[in-house]
Amino acid sequence: MQVTTVNKLAQYVGEVVSIRGWLYNRRSKGKLHFLLIRDGTGIVQGVMFQDDVSQNLFTQCAHLPQESSLIATGKVHQDPRAPGGYELALKDVEILQLAGEYPLGKKSHGSDFLLKNRHLWLRSKKQHAHLKIRSEVVRAIRHFFDSHDFVLIDTPILTSSACEETSGLFEVNYFDRRAYLSQSGQLYAEAAAMAFGRVYCFGPTFRAEKSKTRKHLTEFWMVEPEIAYANLDDIMELAEELVANLVEEVLEKRKEELKILERDTKMLEKITLPFPRLSYAQAVEIIRDSKVSFEWGEDFGAPHEAIISSHFERPVLIHRFPAESKAFYMKKDPQDPHLALCVDMLASEGYGEIIGGGQREDDLETLEKSISEYKLTREDFEWYLDLRRYGSVPHAGFGLGLERTVAWLCGTHHVREVIPFPRTLYRIYP
Amino acid sequence: MQVTTVNKLAQYVGEVVSIRGWLYNRRSKGKLHFLLIRDGTGIVQGVMFQDDVSQNLFTQCAHLPQESSLIATGKVHQDPRAPGGYELALKDVEILQLAGEYPLGKKSHGSDFLLKNRHLWLRSKKQHAHLKIRSEVVRAIRHFFDSHDFVLIDTPILTSSACEETSGLFEVNYFDRRAYLSQSGQLYAEAAAMAFGRVYCFGPTFRAEKSKTRKHLTEFWMVEPEIAYANLDDIMELAEELVANLVEEVLEKRKEELKILERDTKMLEKITLPFPRLSYAQAVEIIRDSKVSFEWGEDFGAPHEAIISSHFERPVLIHRFPAESKAFYMKKDPQDPHLALCVDMLASEGYGEIIGGGQREDDLETLEKSISEYKLTREDFEWYLDLRRYGSVPHAGFGLGLERTVAWLCGTHHVREVIPFPRTLYRIYP
Repeated sequence: MQVTTVNKLAQYVGEVVSIRGWLYNRRSKGKLHFLLIRDGTGIVQGVMFQDDVSQNLFTQCAHLPQESSLIATGKVHQDPRAPGGYELALKDVEILQLAGEYPLGKKSHGSDFLLKNRHLWLRSKKQHAHLKIRSEVVRAIRHFFDSHDFVLIDTPILTSSACEETSGLFEVNYFDRRAYLSQSGQLYAEAAAMAFGRVYCFGPTFRAEKSKTRKHLTEFWMVEPEIAYANLDDIMELAEELVANLVEEVLEKRKEELKILERDTKMLEKITLPFPRLSYAQAVEIIRDSKVSFEWGEDFGAPHEAIISSHFERPVLIHRFPAESKAFYMKKDPQDPHLALCVDMLASEGYGEIIGGGQREDDLETLEKSISEYKLTREDFEWYLDLRRYGSVPHAGFGLGLERTVAWLCGTHHVREVIPFPRTLYRIYP
Repeated sequence: MQVTTVNKLAQYVGEVVSIRGWLYNRRSKGKLHFLLIRDGTGIVQGVMFQDDVSQNLFTQCAHLPQESSLIATGKVHQDPRAPGGYELALKDVEILQLAGEYPLGKKSHGSDFLLKNRHLWLRSKKQHAHLKIRSEVVRAIRHFFDSHDFVLIDTPILTSSACEETSGLFEVNYFDRRAYLSQSGQLYAEAAAMAFGRVYCFGPTFRAEKSKTRKHLTEFWMVEPEIAYANLDDIMELAEELVANLVEEVLEKRKEELKILERDTKMLEKITLPFPRLSYAQAVEIIRDSKVSFEWGEDFGAPHEAIISSHFERPVLIHRFPAESKAFYMKKDPQDPHLALCVDMLASEGYGEIIGGGQREDDLETLEKSISEYKLTREDFEWYLDLRRYGSVPHAGFGLGLERTVAWLCGTHHVREVIPFPRTLYRIYP
């Protein structure tokens, strides 16, 4: 028997094939059972006519529990009314395991219950769509960098020191000493950029923040390109090119999934290059113009980001934030040393920050001073200072948060739905 | 001025271009300086004739320290004698930073010194080649799975329980409780396979083993495919197809780097499908035939692997190990319940194990019994047991260790050279 998958049924019209999957749903009408079968690649309706199968099987299928595993064999028909456009006229169904009563029924569940059952929730249509889109976005990101002459450099997770503030670090017992989980691969990517010119890292990163907002996870994936001989303008261009490319790829390759998520793609379709660029100062003006008070130097919160975004139909680049609120490695603007040569990108439709980056300080003395002003342990950064001792060059890079980007593309409220097994302040199971 | 990179010089023969990079080496001969310039994409020789540049610059270049950063401008000449086949007739060199005395000189250094300076060592030819090959292998692995209908599922690093033995786990302080760094994404990939059919995860994994062999890292990357409705034979086929594909891709796309590493590729070129398959019992016979004593039930050590490998010109698949030495989730061979339906792949040329995998126990009761026999905490595995309660199906998968695979392809003795920043028992800096 020809075994195939639901996404390939079009190739077998008129033939008898087997689909190996699970019962997604069923209804009966007289001498007919309609079995919706999912196999991970799609869902197909199997139509079972009483006279075509054994009495035993027909009776069993009248009560078959949801998620029972089965191998369904039947003839493929094209039928525009069927979900997916094809139908199986069932000749046989081999039942592998009768499922227990499935905890995720048709009634709606609270998020706590769903997250506790994340291992099963993944089978539902919307969660399935989220993760197919995530998989596509990862593919597109890697293809973008691989085809733009970047070398992949996997930076370490276990590190001996903090890259930014120490408060947000997870501590690990590393044999007889302490280590920390990486918050960012940037410093290591800088070392690699001096060796390879253009590099990117793409892996999990960790923040022990107690934030419980819809945008926070303690474990999330980040892609971080870093380029030697690049400045702030270069990476703003790269960032907008990357994001426009991701939008295009998802719109083209994940239409079905966007439909399942009922994503209104009108705004995404409008995204073209270049993106609007504002200085921090201009962004502050927009906020104040909308009668919201805002103190110079603050970072933008979600309501501020929403105000700024609402003025534009595309993602926005905001550059040159006040230096004092930023990390020690940021290069100051030579035109105004109170400002850092950094940039954030806000996604459109109020989804907020998806990218942060900037030009790095490349002068040894300035960086040494900064490390001491930020009260960081100098010896932890000796290797990083070496990059300024031996052939320092202007360089820049950014980090794009995968989950925030995917949540925006999916039009999904909470980032926890676009990662397979979300980790948050109170959740580490399953 | 046209700025380009060394790997694109062929497009600019006869034109004047600028290369932005670092001084790799230099020698002088009368009125000529020969400057070897690296820019991360390659190395080009710049020829500086005294009369073509200012006296000042010519004098400075006579003493330019290695790794100084510079922008070299000159006319591109094709010259078969030059390294890389092209040469720059220099018209100007802008020096950005005069490097301090470079610690990695021409004399040979001990491995401790090199690892302490890993951030600089990455710039040397061989390390550069290792990581270009690694980057290519990662690309090829992802492309293989993406183009074979697998969905990427990023499994979590922070987990609440152990997947195999607890002794090898790194403990993390997770707010007010304990968590562990993942040793494998397999259990989560199994949950995802029930939702998507074919999935893979590919990320860093952690083992707190005190091993100090050439094959051990505490942090390494692993790709793990998992397939619903698959058995041991299916994944043996997938594993050999994957590995043959990686060999082919690297031979085709990383010729230059293999040459730099002086890799004799004769053996790699012989690798064709299918790979030889041995049962554990047959492998034990081979070992005993070579007059080495071996106790039934043991796992193969490096010397045993070398003996087995020496009988074949291709990687070898060894299947059906004694069940008692294997993890709790392995399915027993129905033909002989003392054996597990598992498989290891040994790379050729004595490089040892690069893949481990097998068919998973899919019967609820058998798995419950196994969890209790292995003295694991039952409640940690309730979600995993759910996969057998709701639509259990035969399924199988494997894990391929990235660094071991890359070390083999590179012909490199120690895995620590094929990861950007290796973590070992005593090393977590830089």
